[in-house]
Amino acid sequence: MSTTDITSDLRDPVDAATYLFTRLKQMGIDSVHGVPGDFNLVALDYLEGCGLKWVGNCNELNAGYAADGYARIKGISAVITTFGVGELSLPNAIAGSFAEYVPVVHIVGTPSTLSQANGMLLHHTLGNGNFNVFADMAANIAVDVAKLKDPRDIPSQIDHALAECYLQSRPVYITLPTDMVKKKVEGERLKTKIDLSPHKNDPEREDYVVDVVLKYLTAAKNPVILVDSCAIRHRVLPETHELIEKSGLPVFVAPMGKGAVDETLPNFGGIYAGDGSNPGVRERVEGADLVLTIGQVKSDFNTAGFSIRTSQLQTIDFHSTYTRVRFSEYPGVGMKGVLRKVIDNLPKLNVQPGPDAPENKIPASEDSSDPTITHRWFWPKMGQWLQEGDIVLTETGTSSYGIFDTRFPKDVTNISQVLWGSIGYATGSCQGVALAAKETGGKRRTILFTGDGSFQLTAQELSTMIRHQLNPILFIVCNDGYTIERFIHGMKAGYNDIQNWNYQALPAAFGAKEGTYKTYQVKTKQEVSALFEDKNFSSAPYLQLVELHMPKEDSPDALKLTAEASARNNAKA
Amino acid sequence: MSTTDITSDLRDPVDAATYLFTRLKQMGIDSVHGVPGDFNLVALDYLEGCGLKWVGNCNELNAGYAADGYARIKGISAVITTFGVGELSLPNAIAGSFAEYVPVVHIVGTPSTLSQANGMLLHHTLGNGNFNVFADMAANIAVDVAKLKDPRDIPSQIDHALAECYLQSRPVYITLPTDMVKKKVEGERLKTKIDLSPHKNDPEREDYVVDVVLKYLTAAKNPVILVDSCAIRHRVLPETHELIEKSGLPVFVAPMGKGAVDETLPNFGGIYAGDGSNPGVRERVEGADLVLTIGQVKSDFNTAGFSIRTSQLQTIDFHSTYTRVRFSEYPGVGMKGVLRKVIDNLPKLNVQPGPDAPENKIPASEDSSDPTITHRWFWPKMGQWLQEGDIVLTETGTSSYGIFDTRFPKDVTNISQVLWGSIGYATGSCQGVALAAKETGGKRRTILFTGDGSFQLTAQELSTMIRHQLNPILFIVCNDGYTIERFIHGMKAGYNDIQNWNYQALPAAFGAKEGTYKTYQVKTKQEVSALFEDKNFSSAPYLQLVELHMPKEDSPDALKLTAEASARNNAKA
Repeated sequence: MSTTDITSDLRDPVDAATYLFTRLKQMGIDSVHGVPGDFNLVALDYLEGCGLKWVGNCNELNAGYAADGYARIKGISAVITTFGVGELSLPNAIAGSFAEYVPVVHIVGTPSTLSQANGMLLHHTLGNGNFNVFADMAANIAVDVAKLKDPRDIPSQIDHALAECYLQSRPVYITLPTDMVKKKVEGERLKTKIDLSPHKNDPEREDYVVDVVLKYLTAAKNPVILVDSCAIRHRVLPETHELIEKSGLPVFVAPMGKGAVDETLPNFGGIYAGDGSNPGVRERVEGADLVLTIGQVKSDFNTAGFSIRTSQLQTIDFHSTYTRVRFSEYPGVGMKGVLRKVIDNLPKLNVQPGPDAPENKIPASEDSSDPTITHRWFWPKMGQWLQEGDIVLTETGTSSYGIFDTRFPKDVTNISQVLWGSIGYATGSCQGVALAAKETGGKRRTILFTGDGSFQLTAQELSTMIRHQLNPILFIVCNDGYTIERFIHGMKAGYNDIQNWNYQALPAAFGAKEGTYKTYQVKTKQEVSALFEDKNFSSAPYLQLVELHMPKEDSPDALKLTAEASARNNAKA
Repeated sequence: MSTTDITSDLRDPVDAATYLFTRLKQMGIDSVHGVPGDFNLVALDYLEGCGLKWVGNCNELNAGYAADGYARIKGISAVITTFGVGELSLPNAIAGSFAEYVPVVHIVGTPSTLSQANGMLLHHTLGNGNFNVFADMAANIAVDVAKLKDPRDIPSQIDHALAECYLQSRPVYITLPTDMVKKKVEGERLKTKIDLSPHKNDPEREDYVVDVVLKYLTAAKNPVILVDSCAIRHRVLPETHELIEKSGLPVFVAPMGKGAVDETLPNFGGIYAGDGSNPGVRERVEGADLVLTIGQVKSDFNTAGFSIRTSQLQTIDFHSTYTRVRFSEYPGVGMKGVLRKVIDNLPKLNVQPGPDAPENKIPASEDSSDPTITHRWFWPKMGQWLQEGDIVLTETGTSSYGIFDTRFPKDVTNISQVLWGSIGYATGSCQGVALAAKETGGKRRTILFTGDGSFQLTAQELSTMIRHQLNPILFIVCNDGYTIERFIHGMKAGYNDIQNWNYQALPAAFGAKEGTYKTYQVKTKQEVSALFEDKNFSSAPYLQLVELHMPKEDSPDALKLTAEASARNNAKA
């Protein structure tokens, strides 16, 4: 039987593109990011019919970042590019999603299966007849590669890829050749949603681990909880919160876990990042006789340059696929099930208070008569202005460290690429986040903090925000270049300088109409205060861009410490 | 002997970075493109001391495109990125250089060898301790991968990589760990330049092939020459020109070969691209009893959708590494040597004239009373305005096809990514080209033709042009979106629309100072004519940007034909 005559055997024939896009819609995706290209155009015709909107980004890297941001809010996202030229522009974004456990479905429109079989010398190829090379590259940063080429296999390939994407919470790569788009596949399967229920631990092993955990927990004299990013990305925040509230134990977050915990709780103690910790936190965490870590990532920027000093002998680590108690590892026993049973069987605990988390107070050491906007002053001040439900994006650099000193209201999400750390990410991501916020009710503000150097990498995505009438508030920290790099190496070096832009002129240049946006420039503490008191500004009625001028050589303390550690490590041989 | 105590054995110890950058300078590179990142900062300190300028692009993809453009003018180029986040933004640019045979040295600053050996959980990694994954990806689109990690090997690794880059005319990938930058290596070698002399054919084989070629050439009744891009990229233009002038045979170029041949020669007949050929060319070439092709690339966009109909029985193909006479292949016998001997032993030939190449005349069918700027009108008109020595960049789309109808003055270079076809390329490339033009005397104008959709992908590189006081003339064809795609599929589809920008506002937004640039908007034929007559404009005194408004659904005829062929091929199963 050839691949062309299977239609008669199908109970409910649907086009392959319909199958794929219906699945995306079923998983909660409402808009698809990407850039059109001749090998994906026919597929794009199917989006609308499947209830999906097309974003149409300015370029593919930005589309990839936006998809990452969208997924962090809506749980999963999709980005469509074209073969070769499109897909090779966004490995940086996809690798970031891979590193940080963000489920992004990357769909690539490719030349037809016939063109590939014949090794045709097509545009967008390397000219050598090899049609697999880009997929081979993508396989390094995807948990599944599905090359759709036979209609009989397409539904199961798609379902498998999408399930892996969601369950492993990492990118997958799907190629859709032009001639497969309209091929009929079995649509009957679409009546049942893909099974996305989390992996269940073996009950006997799980019970064993829970007993061990409870034993140490009962014995501990002053235990604490440390929450990190994998708690967010592997979807155990409900269990995490139940444990925090029921136990009453002091709880801290690592930088990547910022936003995972309700910071209005009395037992929230702030950021733990070794030398970069909030006041009192380091002493409390490292002085505890038991640290329960949930989804911890011990990367350099998440630990202020590997400066955390907890002992594994006094630690229980909960991870998505294993549990570690002191030095005993329990592979296959993931945190979702273990935490549930620990909560349900929680013994009486010794609860010793932790330090109070920073209260968004300006440090007394700050000279309020000096109008210069400093990081020490700004981040607590900004914290006073934040509202419940805000989504805050902080670019790698002064912003991602500055946010350590901001205490969040309830239900604030923080998005920062602390591990992957690609500058330019936050602006691209902001477009996807703002769109996701709009689609999920439109009540959450999207607030971006990026640097001038970082903003320039992906600046044109402002155009996409304008095009879709999104209303983020964009703070561009104008400090004459790459400040995070200055602190690592080359404080005065020309290579850390940038061309200074007139950022306020950009929305109009990108086609924003008068009255549909607003720009600001703030250079003094007083201007910042006035801006934060401006009700129209705070209500985020439309896109707003703020040039926030800060000194070139000022940075949050935690950044200085991390940068010094990085420089030392770079030089070590 | 450990790697740290070799210094005493060195006759002329120099730092590894000095070695690398000195070699780049020796090969003719004066400026290095790229973006700083913490793993390359210490290396960047060495540039100035080695006589190299740092460009500092807005992002890595743009830097890659710029490096490609720079190499097309200066013969080779270098781009420096940082590990992971930097390097993964430019595979699209590097793959384009690979596909189109452009020698670009990609240098990546990586974590220290010690960090890598210890598998440290650093930022810019996937978090899995694998430090090889990005190099593995890069190896797919590089002809050499040099991981510098032992000072004793570094000089030979560098020399080998740079020689391969130049001789194969394709990208190489070099990793420079932070701790290797300052390591002492043998500098004695720097006194001798790297041997870049082209591969020599085995004389006996070469003579045999030359005899066969001459036999067919003598017998031919109406032979013609077809020149294509590999003649440019593999550096046989001097031989090609000698053959054209000495033989007097009609000569044609494929689209990718546009600019390779002096178009003021009487025997220049125009573009051969099957259905997309200039008038009379198809008949002449396909009616010839012998076609000598020099560096031909038979890709879809280079042949108006595989519509060329030459017979291999009547063809002799000259390539960089082999010669093919009818169906006889001669591997290892490259064109450089063969052409030399063919020229030196050229027999009396039957020279039958070819058609006259288009003379930049507006077609009589064009209604000059209609003010609308059409492609049929514009490209010959523009040809009248071009000057000797101009460098013209035409973006994949209406511009890369429109240029078929422009006849060049002497010594005009045409840069167009016909095979790889990545939109956004031309704007990024333009920065590198304009810089190269400045460094090579500053007398050549750099003229960009791009589309509005394409421009948006890489728009911020305008900022880099401003920063370096470059003076390109940028024509942005404003036609409401991706016109090349409309002709392939979705003429009215929303996904081929874009956000319309106020392009004239961009230079000021990107920090250009009043009086150091000029912008224009032309919407009628009359305005175009006036602009071309404006002496100040034509003298290219500073950066100039022209909004060139053309109808959304107008395109050069050759594009329509190619797009239709593409759409048919995409649908074929």
